[in-house]
Amino acid sequence: MKIRLADLADKIGAELLGPYAELEMTGVAGLDHAGPGDVTFVDTADLLEKARSAGAVIVPPEVERCDKPALRAAHPRLAFARVLALFAPEVSVEPGVHPTAVLGRDVDIADGVSIGALCFIGDRARVGKGTVIHPLVYVGEGVKIAEHTTIFPNVTIYHRTEIGSRVIIHSGAVIGADGFGFTQVDGKRHKIPQIGTVIIGDDVEVGACVCIDRATTAQTVIGRGTKIDNLVQIAHNVRVGEDCVMAALGGIAGSSIVGNRVTMAAGAGVADHVTVGDDAILGALAAAISNVPAGAHFSGMPARHHEKFLRAQAAHLRLPHLVEQVRALSQKVKALEEAMSKPR
Amino acid sequence: MKIRLADLADKIGAELLGPYAELEMTGVAGLDHAGPGDVTFVDTADLLEKARSAGAVIVPPEVERCDKPALRAAHPRLAFARVLALFAPEVSVEPGVHPTAVLGRDVDIADGVSIGALCFIGDRARVGKGTVIHPLVYVGEGVKIAEHTTIFPNVTIYHRTEIGSRVIIHSGAVIGADGFGFTQVDGKRHKIPQIGTVIIGDDVEVGACVCIDRATTAQTVIGRGTKIDNLVQIAHNVRVGEDCVMAALGGIAGSSIVGNRVTMAAGAGVADHVTVGDDAILGALAAAISNVPAGAHFSGMPARHHEKFLRAQAAHLRLPHLVEQVRALSQKVKALEEAMSKPR
Amino acid sequence: MKIRLADLADKIGAELLGPYAELEMTGVAGLDHAGPGDVTFVDTADLLEKARSAGAVIVPPEVERCDKPALRAAHPRLAFARVLALFAPEVSVEPGVHPTAVLGRDVDIADGVSIGALCFIGDRARVGKGTVIHPLVYVGEGVKIAEHTTIFPNVTIYHRTEIGSRVIIHSGAVIGADGFGFTQVDGKRHKIPQIGTVIIGDDVEVGACVCIDRATTAQTVIGRGTKIDNLVQIAHNVRVGEDCVMAALGGIAGSSIVGNRVTMAAGAGVADHVTVGDDAILGALAAAISNVPAGAHFSGMPARHHEKFLRAQAAHLRLPHLVEQVRALSQKVKALEEAMSKPR
Repeated sequence: MKIRLADLADKIGAELLGPYAELEMTGVAGLDHAGPGDVTFVDTADLLEKARSAGAVIVPPEVERCDKPALRAAHPRLAFARVLALFAPEVSVEPGVHPTAVLGRDVDIADGVSIGALCFIGDRARVGKGTVIHPLVYVGEGVKIAEHTTIFPNVTIYHRTEIGSRVIIHSGAVIGADGFGFTQVDGKRHKIPQIGTVIIGDDVEVGACVCIDRATTAQTVIGRGTKIDNLVQIAHNVRVGEDCVMAALGGIAGSSIVGNRVTMAAGAGVADHVTVGDDAILGALAAAISNVPAGAHFSGMPARHHEKFLRAQAAHLRLPHLVEQVRALSQKVKALEEAMSKPR
Repeated sequence: MKIRLADLADKIGAELLGPYAELEMTGVAGLDHAGPGDVTFVDTADLLEKARSAGAVIVPPEVERCDKPALRAAHPRLAFARVLALFAPEVSVEPGVHPTAVLGRDVDIADGVSIGALCFIGDRARVGKGTVIHPLVYVGEGVKIAEHTTIFPNVTIYHRTEIGSRVIIHSGAVIGADGFGFTQVDGKRHKIPQIGTVIIGDDVEVGACVCIDRATTAQTVIGRGTKIDNLVQIAHNVRVGEDCVMAALGGIAGSSIVGNRVTMAAGAGVADHVTVGDDAILGALAAAISNVPAGAHFSGMPARHHEKFLRAQAAHLRLPHLVEQVRALSQKVKALEEAMSKPR
Repeated sequence: MKIRLADLADKIGAELLGPYAELEMTGVAGLDHAGPGDVTFVDTADLLEKARSAGAVIVPPEVERCDKPALRAAHPRLAFARVLALFAPEVSVEPGVHPTAVLGRDVDIADGVSIGALCFIGDRARVGKGTVIHPLVYVGEGVKIAEHTTIFPNVTIYHRTEIGSRVIIHSGAVIGADGFGFTQVDGKRHKIPQIGTVIIGDDVEVGACVCIDRATTAQTVIGRGTKIDNLVQIAHNVRVGEDCVMAALGGIAGSSIVGNRVTMAAGAGVADHVTVGDDAILGALAAAISNVPAGAHFSGMPARHHEKFLRAQAAHLRLPHLVEQVRALSQKVKALEEAMSKPR
C-alpha cells in the first residue's frame, strides 16, 4: 500500500508541515525500526532526532517546524494508531454461518454476522449485527452478544453470559466458568452452585487465557471500556468499573469492587471483599489486601501508598548496612558503659 | 420457579421457624442482593439484621426465633448451596454422541454419556456412565474417564490420563501436557521425554486454564476431593493429597508432595522437591521453598510460620523509622564518646 | 517392550559394565520408582545406593565398576532421556488431512503432514513436511509452520505467525494475539492496532496456556532452542534469545530484550523496555525492573545481585531482633546520657 502524505494527514486528522504533500509512504513502524518509506511518531519534540531514518514523523502540537516530513497532531500516539489501522493487513472474514458450525435451537443471528468454522452456538443464543465469531468458539445456551464484537478462536463463553458491543475477546479466554465456591463440612468440600452470570460492557477488550468467573448469584461485571491483558483472573461476584486497565498475570479475588479508570500493573492483585477507588493505581505485583482510596497509588505486598513503599524499599536495601551500624553501635555503647563503670 | 417454604425446608434438611409453611419463594440471592422473594443465608446470628430485605433466611442452630421466615440448619452455607442447586437454571445436555463428534477406534462409551458437538475422542478412550463432555473437547488416546464427570468446552486431556468420578473440569484446562524437563549439554537443551501420566481422583474440580503436567515416568496425582481454582500450574511428578484447596494463579513445581486438606491461597507456590504436610495453610503469595510441617500456617517469600512473617512484616513497615532511630542513636553515642574523652 | 542391555547400551551411546549383555529390561523409571525390570539413572556416583531396587542404572563416566548392571555414559541424564524415548508408548498419528478439518484457500501442505480432526487452517497457510497438527487447532491466515513441528490440540495461532522446525506447542497456547497497546485520550482508552507478527525459532518448546503476543509493528521473536513452561506471558515486541529457559507463571513485558541462554525461574518477570544479558539467571519470582548484566544472577523484587538479595533477606529475617536491639541500645544510651549529666 502507498499513500500520499496529504491524504494521510487528512485521514488521521493531522496537519502536514512542509512541502511534502505528494510524497508517498509505504509503511508504518516504531521509532527503532522506521525506514525511509515508513511513518513513525514521537510523543515529545526531544525524541525527534531518533526519527532520523523515518520517512515521516507524527509530532505533537508544540513542534512548529521540522527538517523532515512531519504530521502535527493533538495526540501523536492516537494519530499513529490511525496510521496503523490504515496499514493493517486485511484479515478475511467470511460473512454468514460456516456450514461446519453447529447451531442450537432458536438461535438469533443478526445481519452481517460471521460465525466461523467449527463453532458451537447454544440454544437461544443471540448474536448482534456485525459481530465476528472466529472458528472453534463455544457460545453457551442463552448467551447474548451485542454488535460489532469480535471473538477470536478457541474462546469459551459459558451459558447466559452477556457481552456488549465492540468487545474484543482473545483466544483461550474463558468467560463464565463457575466461581470458586465451596463450603467445608467435616473436612470435605461441598460445591456451592454458581448460578449467576457475567456481564461484559461495551468496548471491553479481554486478553488471551483470561478467566472471568460467573457470580454465585447476581453478576460478575466488567465495566465499559475496560481493557484486560493476558492470563488475568477475575473471580466471582467481582465488579470492575469503566475504563480500567489490567496488565498480565494479575487477579481480583471474589466479591471485590474496582472503581472506574483504575490501573493495575502486571501481576497486581486485589484480595477478596476489597474496594479499590476510582482512578487508583496498583503498581506491578502490588497486593491490595484492604481498601485502596480513590486516586491513590499503591505498591508492595501488602500494598500501601507508593511513597511509603519506596521509603521502606530504600530502607530495605540498606538493611545489611543497618545491621552493621547497630552492631558497631552496640560495641561503642558497651565500651562507654565499661568506661563509665570504672572509677576515674 | 416457585417453592413453598415447607417444601424447601424439607428438601434442604432445615427446620422452618414460624408459621410460614405456605409462603412461596421465587429466587435465591446473597445477603447484599436478596429481595422479598429470595432465600438468603447467614453463617452467624449477628448478621441477621443484614437479611432485612430477604424473603427468608437460612440461620445457624443457635438462632431460636426470628422475626422473619427462617430455615434453621446445622450448616447454613451447605443448606444455601442446596437452595442454589434447586434454583439453578437447567442447562440442556443432549444424551448420546453428537454426529459432529469424531471418535477413534475401540472407544468405550457407557450408557447415558453425552459427548458434545465437535469433540474429538481418541482411540481406546473409555467414558463412564452419566459423564458429560461438552463441545469442542479433546480426549486423547487411551484416556479413562469414570462416571458422572463433567468436562466443559475447549478442555484438552492428553493421552492416557485417568480421571475419576464426579470430577468437574472447566474450559481451557490442559491435563497431561509434557512436564518441563530438559537436560543441558554444551549449552543446548535436550528434551527429556515425559512418558508418565496424570491421575485425577474422584470429586476433584479443576478450574479454567489450569495446567497439570504428565509425569516423567509414573504419575502426577491429584487426590480425591481436591479443588483447584483458575490459572494454576501443577508440574510433573507432583502428588497433591485429598480435599486440598488451591486458589487462583498458584503453582506447585516438579516432584513436590502436598498432603491432605492443604489450603493454598491465591498466588501461593511450592518449589520443586518440597513436601507440604497435611492440613498446612500457605497464605496468599506464599512461596514454600522448603518443607512445610503438617498443620503449619506459612506466609511470605520465602514462606515461614505466619506469626514470624507478621512480626517481620510489622518490623518492615517500621524500617524507615528504625533507620531514623539508628541515625539518632549514632549521634548520641558520638556525643557521649566525645564527652567521655574530655577531661572532667 | 523388552530390550537386551547390550542393545540398549548401543542405542543410547553408553558402555555396558559387567557381564549383563543378555539381561533384558522392560521399563524405565525415576530413582524413587525403579523396580527390577527398570532402567534408571544417577547423575553422580554417590546416588548409586539409591538405585538398589532398579534393574540397571545409567552412571556417569567416573564410575568404574558397579555391583549391578550399569550403563556408563558421558551425560547420564541425556542417556536416560534416550531410554525414555525408547520406552515411550506410541501415540498414533494419522498422516494426511482429516476429513473434518476445514482448510482455507491456497493452503500449502507438504508431504507427510498430519492435520487432525476439526482443525481450521486459514487461507495461504503453509505447513512443512512431517509436521503434526493435532485436532481442534486453529491456524490463521498466512501462517507459516516449518518441518517436523508438533502442535497439540486447542492451540491458537493467529494470522501471519511464523513457526520454525521441530517446534512443540502445547495445548491452550495462544500465539499472536494482539499486544496490549492503548493510548489514553480524555480518560478513554483507544486501541493501538497491532499489525506486527510473531516469529518462533527452530527447536522451541511452548508450554500449555502460554501467551505470546504479536508485535505492534515488526515482530515478537522467540529464539532457537528456547523452552517455555506453562502459563507464561510474553508481551508484544519482546525479543527472547536462543536456548533460554522460562519456568511457569513468569512474564516478559513489552519491548524487552532477553539474551541467549537466559534462565528465568518460576514466576520471574521482566518489566517493559528492559534488557537481560546473555547467560543471566533470574531466580524464582525475581522482578527485573531494570537491565540485568550478562552472566548475572538476580533475585528479589526489585531484582538485584543474588548475593545482595540473600544478605538483605537474611537481614530481613533478623529484623524483629534488630528492632529489639535498637530499643535496648536506646535505653542504654539514655542511661549513659543521664549518668553523664550527673555530677560525679
